[in-house]
Amino acid sequence: MRIALLGGTGDIGEGIALRLARDTDHEVVIGSRDAEKAETRAGEYVERLGERGHDAAVEGYGNEEATTAADVVVVSVPPEYAASTVEVVADHLDDGAVLICPATQMDRDATGFHYDPPADGSVAEAVAAAAPEGNPVVGAFQNIAAGALTDLDNELDVDVVLTGDDVDAKATVGDLVAGIDGLRTLDAGGLANSSEVESITPLLINLAMNNEGMHDLGVRFQ
Amino acid sequence: MRIALLGGTGDIGEGIALRLARDTDHEVVIGSRDAEKAETRAGEYVERLGERGHDAAVEGYGNEEATTAADVVVVSVPPEYAASTVEVVADHLDDGAVLICPATQMDRDATGFHYDPPADGSVAEAVAAAAPEGNPVVGAFQNIAAGALTDLDNELDVDVVLTGDDVDAKATVGDLVAGIDGLRTLDAGGLANSSEVESITPLLINLAMNNEGMHDLGVRFQ
Repeated sequence: MRIALLGGTGDIGEGIALRLARDTDHEVVIGSRDAEKAETRAGEYVERLGERGHDAAVEGYGNEEATTAADVVVVSVPPEYAASTVEVVADHLDDGAVLICPATQMDRDATGFHYDPPADGSVAEAVAAAAPEGNPVVGAFQNIAAGALTDLDNELDVDVVLTGDDVDAKATVGDLVAGIDGLRTLDAGGLANSSEVESITPLLINLAMNNEGMHDLGVRFQ
Repeated sequence: MRIALLGGTGDIGEGIALRLARDTDHEVVIGSRDAEKAETRAGEYVERLGERGHDAAVEGYGNEEATTAADVVVVSVPPEYAASTVEVVADHLDDGAVLICPATQMDRDATGFHYDPPADGSVAEAVAAAAPEGNPVVGAFQNIAAGALTDLDNELDVDVVLTGDDVDAKATVGDLVAGIDGLRTLDAGGLANSSEVESITPLLINLAMNNEGMHDLGVRFQ
């Protein structure tokens, strides 16, 4: 499949791009509002993977061009731009292309980080509201720290929880995620169940802040 | 210490009582609105532990009497009764006795279970609002399935996340929880960070409903 990571120059996009390029045979492209920046970063990813002996092809484009002909589009932009980014690329989405929403929305006060969902109930639902009818949305990757992904020496052993209303789209994403070494996928039901997944992310940061030696945490259900 | 489990005839109270009585040297008492029921259930717990070779003492009383002279009081009643139960026993609380809130509040629709916090932001904060000033509240045990605790053949290997504004109270609860075999405690900061812990519980149920062979799930951060 062709996998496009919009905002693929950001840290979570970088992490997913590197892992997919290293561990799977999918075609990985990264997108950015700035096509030149995307191209430069894609070159850096290829170089980093090459230094580790992985002959991977990652290409970089503007978000619209990255979206074109993609089977799966990961909306790895900051949460406040997630819905608007989908609107920008909507005309370039292949019918049936699956959107993945890895974002959560948080605020911070003196106590720590707190889940601060948009009016739709979750970022995933906000993305779905902005997506064309023929493009199902799946929530995934919210509870994985970017640092845990981008550090390619780090062996992952965590869960990726999936939410989505389209069973086939969820299966496609499940296969894609499970292709990354050390990730297990679990199904949490429909997209309306996304907020309970997204709200774990601020907790992971609060745990990192309050416990010695814990950082870049993920979660495992057992 | 003397540990009182209000609502200790319910399933989560039962689980915590059995594990504390089996794994620690603390004095365990269970409370109920119905003192006779508490006494009967306490006898059953002692019998079950005895059948497994554990010579444990668990006693049962009305909630007020169970609270008297307790060092730690676990408010293991349904969430809608948590604050009012604290009000009922308030005059019986020793100054400095620590309250543990293991509850979360959920609703259910066609999609699954959803976190439905009270107006205070979390059940733990609602309990704190009802508690006397000298009785600190610590959130704990929300993400452990009652079935995982009550099945004494089940070896636990999960985390208990603590929230609370009183550092000493949180340390007391941390020691208490860590006394139960297979539980690790993690500090998630102040009580205002409780909602992100409580909201994991409906997700655990959604995961159990949507994944073959997964039930009585807990969580591990790694």
